[in-house]
Amino acid sequence: MGNDLPAWVKERRKPRVIIIGGGFGGLYAARKLKRANVDLLVLDRTNHHLFQPLLYQVATATLAATDITAPIRWLLAKQHNATVLMTEVDRVDPDRRVVVAEKGTKEYPYDFLIVASGARHAYFGHPEWEGTAPGLKSIDDALELRRRILTAFERAELTDDADERRAWLTFVIVGAGPTGVELAGMLPTIAKHALPRDYRRISHEDVRVVLLEGGTRVLSTYPEELSEHARNDLVSLGVDVRLGSLVTSIVPGEVHASGDEVIRSHTVIWAAGNAASPLGATLGAPVDKVGRVLVAPDLSVPAHPEIFAIGDIVSITTDGKAVPGVAPAAMQMGPHAARNVLRTLEGRERLPFRYRNKGDLATIGRHKAIADFGFLRVSGGLAWWFWLLVHIMYLAGFRNRFSVLLEWGYAYFTYERGARLITGRR
Amino acid sequence: MGNDLPAWVKERRKPRVIIIGGGFGGLYAARKLKRANVDLLVLDRTNHHLFQPLLYQVATATLAATDITAPIRWLLAKQHNATVLMTEVDRVDPDRRVVVAEKGTKEYPYDFLIVASGARHAYFGHPEWEGTAPGLKSIDDALELRRRILTAFERAELTDDADERRAWLTFVIVGAGPTGVELAGMLPTIAKHALPRDYRRISHEDVRVVLLEGGTRVLSTYPEELSEHARNDLVSLGVDVRLGSLVTSIVPGEVHASGDEVIRSHTVIWAAGNAASPLGATLGAPVDKVGRVLVAPDLSVPAHPEIFAIGDIVSITTDGKAVPGVAPAAMQMGPHAARNVLRTLEGRERLPFRYRNKGDLATIGRHKAIADFGFLRVSGGLAWWFWLLVHIMYLAGFRNRFSVLLEWGYAYFTYERGARLITGRR
Repeated sequence: MGNDLPAWVKERRKPRVIIIGGGFGGLYAARKLKRANVDLLVLDRTNHHLFQPLLYQVATATLAATDITAPIRWLLAKQHNATVLMTEVDRVDPDRRVVVAEKGTKEYPYDFLIVASGARHAYFGHPEWEGTAPGLKSIDDALELRRRILTAFERAELTDDADERRAWLTFVIVGAGPTGVELAGMLPTIAKHALPRDYRRISHEDVRVVLLEGGTRVLSTYPEELSEHARNDLVSLGVDVRLGSLVTSIVPGEVHASGDEVIRSHTVIWAAGNAASPLGATLGAPVDKVGRVLVAPDLSVPAHPEIFAIGDIVSITTDGKAVPGVAPAAMQMGPHAARNVLRTLEGRERLPFRYRNKGDLATIGRHKAIADFGFLRVSGGLAWWFWLLVHIMYLAGFRNRFSVLLEWGYAYFTYERGARLITGRR
Repeated sequence: MGNDLPAWVKERRKPRVIIIGGGFGGLYAARKLKRANVDLLVLDRTNHHLFQPLLYQVATATLAATDITAPIRWLLAKQHNATVLMTEVDRVDPDRRVVVAEKGTKEYPYDFLIVASGARHAYFGHPEWEGTAPGLKSIDDALELRRRILTAFERAELTDDADERRAWLTFVIVGAGPTGVELAGMLPTIAKHALPRDYRRISHEDVRVVLLEGGTRVLSTYPEELSEHARNDLVSLGVDVRLGSLVTSIVPGEVHASGDEVIRSHTVIWAAGNAASPLGATLGAPVDKVGRVLVAPDLSVPAHPEIFAIGDIVSITTDGKAVPGVAPAAMQMGPHAARNVLRTLEGRERLPFRYRNKGDLATIGRHKAIADFGFLRVSGGLAWWFWLLVHIMYLAGFRNRFSVLLEWGYAYFTYERGARLITGRR
């Protein structure tokens, strides 16, 4: 390099910033760079930003897929320094400072890189379970789950075999984190209100929702008192909550769990484990056992200060606590990484990231929720209304916000699911 | 059978009526039987009724899939004589009076059968074109077209190769019937309003929409004067309308047409030909060359007065004119067939079907349409508002009606497409 001038100064051009991923981390990082004098490139394998906390509502046919998604390029249309490309990133080459995409046929050089490619579900060494027990991370996952859940009711109505009917009406959810709990809470509500009216042969009393959790309580990252509340709410909805129950095998039609138990079910949903995006392993940085990048306090990668990693792809501890893999954490890390890029460009020192936990929220079925604001813990109806307010506030784009309110109002007052559409060929 | 009593009298039970297909024909037939003292079974391979005339708006990302669909069992929930089953019908066995389904594993006996299983697109002996040039009949078709159209813009923005970019921005529509014309009119509108704002590298001036029609005019079933209007509207939107142009071959990336012409395109949409559902051929009745059942004037099958066929699966002439394969015809045939079932049960003579053409409507892009009411022919803005009114009125279920109005209002005033979501794995 000869002298110490950065490449963009020597080459008389704007610094190039690439963001990989248009989720909460990537989108909020991009927006923070709105007025920056940089060339910004946002890469995502899909064309849309996804409001992930409401994904389970698409899977359970309450909201439409278009209600919780918005095109990334639409969200960044007025940000003139930003170009958005839909492309599959293969890996990062940190030595040559390029992002490699489209099976090695494309390379995008960067001066600064923000990796926000998130996580996928992981099957604890059993990738063969995925076909039978899909997870819920993308909009395609949600549409696949919706297809399976609605089809299960249809097959139950169709069959004349009592055993088969029971297997079609048994829903097994593996993992009692927020996604598992929210799905488990929604299914009995749907069954109770839709089945008696629309189906002639099956009864909602035949519907069984089993929530399997290997640990000792549901929502294990929440205070114990709220976990207990959530468990009671689930039980009162009729959910069969089994704590300390480890899955040993999943095959089509059957889930095997601790103690040689076999549950016959055609609809198994995986909400148990996450693994970071494989891009993390290509950054030349240490990763933990689920593939998360161990970043420095400023969110950059130890050996490459020009690379930042944010959101579900990182493992970081602030104020002595591990930052959880939740949307609010990504929303805070994104702007922080962007700010550190700007400070570097201005020749100022970088700031360490500190996670501010503004509270945790989870809903359980209709009209119940738990909320933990640290100084205040709420459960029941009030928490539910608060949950509604927060989610509406954060939904990207006015149009979706309004449309979601409408769908929710409709579902709330009529007990109807507005999006009971089966799509996708098997 | 020994004596002349019908089976349901001898067996002391209600007459069994089966309807195959929950489209306009089947749904309207079922509703006509609302108060009938029969056991009604409605079979469909999907779980939803589809408002087919607006399917092209899902394909072009204006409406969400859930806006134009409603579960068949929801639509018939209050009709207590009706059971709805989602199942794949294989064939009818008219001699044994059973419907065979689920690969021969299920049989449903009937006393009266109404076949309303519609049509699929046909490729004039070239089924191999389907993968490259999909058609638009089902909601899955619409989501696949939406994926292809939106992906084409994304790939055009991504590529650095000028030829490739041109091929991605060229859309070829084969067939200038209502579906072809409506799709062709929508694409330039999308390109003109979405591209300049959201894309950085491609211009709407590079978008080419080619409409290939083998015949001598667009919308050939309409009066010549309106065809000419529609063609002018399309041309003024920038559509390359080619009449008398026959497709000779379709391969990935290329369409070959009359006169050795080759059009480079990655997005080809088939709107040229229909074939009736293959069930028609199993009814023991004569069919025409596209598989449509030649029904008697009362809509029953000549050799089997207990079997009726309605909608796109039949060929019938009333008042000296062929009844067109459009939604209003199915909406009239459905109740008529049901009425003839009721009259038969009451021992009254059946009535012949007469098609009442209340008018034809087609839209061309934003704010243009043509309407033919026989006594009155309108084109332009007035026809467009009329089109809007009619479609809103007929949309099944209040909720969808309201939601669609909202989406349309949004799209109309902001020029935004609310449903620009790419789903489905390739």
